[in-house]
Amino acid sequence: MPTDEDTTVAALRREIAQFIRERDWEQFHDPKNLSMAIATEAGELMEHFRWVKNDPSREQVRDPQAKAAVAEELADILAFALSFANAVNLDITSALHAKMAKNARKYPADQYKGRY
Amino acid sequence: MPTDEDTTVAALRREIAQFIRERDWEQFHDPKNLSMAIATEAGELMEHFRWVKNDPSREQVRDPQAKAAVAEELADILAFALSFANAVNLDITSALHAKMAKNARKYPADQYKGRY
Amino acid sequence: MPTDEDTTVAALRREIAQFIRERDWEQFHDPKNLSMAIATEAGELMEHFRWVKNDPSREQVRDPQAKAAVAEELADILAFALSFANAVNLDITSALHAKMAKNARKYPADQYKGRY
Amino acid sequence: MPTDEDTTVAALRREIAQFIRERDWEQFHDPKNLSMAIATEAGELMEHFRWVKNDPSREQVRDPQAKAAVAEELADILAFALSFANAVNLDITSALHAKMAKNARKYPADQYKGRY
Repeated sequence: MPTDEDTTVAALRREIAQFIRERDWEQFHDPKNLSMAIATEAGELMEHFRWVKNDPSREQVRDPQAKAAVAEELADILAFALSFANAVNLDITSALHAKMAKNARKYPADQYKGRY
Repeated sequence: MPTDEDTTVAALRREIAQFIRERDWEQFHDPKNLSMAIATEAGELMEHFRWVKNDPSREQVRDPQAKAAVAEELADILAFALSFANAVNLDITSALHAKMAKNARKYPADQYKGRY
Repeated sequence: MPTDEDTTVAALRREIAQFIRERDWEQFHDPKNLSMAIATEAGELMEHFRWVKNDPSREQVRDPQAKAAVAEELADILAFALSFANAVNLDITSALHAKMAKNARKYPADQYKGRY
Repeated sequence: MPTDEDTTVAALRREIAQFIRERDWEQFHDPKNLSMAIATEAGELMEHFRWVKNDPSREQVRDPQAKAAVAEELADILAFALSFANAVNLDITSALHAKMAKNARKYPADQYKGRY
């Protein structure tokens, strides 16, 4: 079974692209709709945590069933995020590195230790 | 420069984990807060498309500046999604494969061609 | 049956406050949780429209059943928004008037006619 | 200055409708776009609370400046929610009463005291 250790971002993107293509769903997967889909799924992930406090939210996901439910929501978010990258033709790794470099300048590690 | 073709999901996860650790931010990155952060960034991505129609949203991201702005929002979403996977200790590739298998049963390609 | 014509914002706020108080739920209704709840319900409202285009979304809500479903989601959003106003002790009417005055300065009607 | 005590929901709806009409923005205010706008503004409200814990989120809004910022975000959410009600032609008071009656059956006060 492939895991994060031996799977490239491009491989996941191609799997999602194929799933969408086989159903002729590219017509629905434009940037507007995909941004809505990501946000909708993010709402579903939040729903698991909206009435628990921060520390109990860590406990909650130790339960295997709760963790499995949460894994499905995260998978939905990521599936649409990967499809967004496909639709817009952008390299996720490059985008992430560029943003992290920007954040590293905005939040130098020594000044932002333990605080936002 | 590393790209999606030669970068594993695990490599990205480790980079995010290190960025958070260097700032001692694990204390903030619990499932509740991270679900809020993903949803907030998803809202920022949507903001680019909320008044345009579907087809123009495809045009919009062809402009390099608009594409760069959208790439930053997607990077933010993914950074928090990767951090969520780290906090909860779940394998993204496995979660995605499990969800896609479930969706393939729910939406057989021959029955859902071109429709949702 | 009371309608929008004969119901004050304060009356709705008091009804929500009573519903929450009767269940001893004020402990959960802090600004953080309520902001998550509003966003989660907003996600559920979006879910009805994520794959339809703009004009068909107007058609869709003409169907009485679809309209009723959408009315429930809007009610959820508003219930939490009213509870947020209660928790934070802010006057909705004043907040809305202040924001509209600000927006009227930002978007003068003659300059923003038909465009954003 | 009108407040929640002497302002009907219908009065607020009419003010929003007039603001939109004066700018010829009804063309943008369809159910799809408005659901995105509500969710986007809900994301902005959350942004104020994403790294604070629950009890500190109550403290935070006691500061007048923080409260004013949060009031603006809530106003944005409500403005789009009221515009949604206008676009879909639904009575907010009736929708809210119907949903509260349903929730009262789902969560009887004696069984759900202090718990969700």
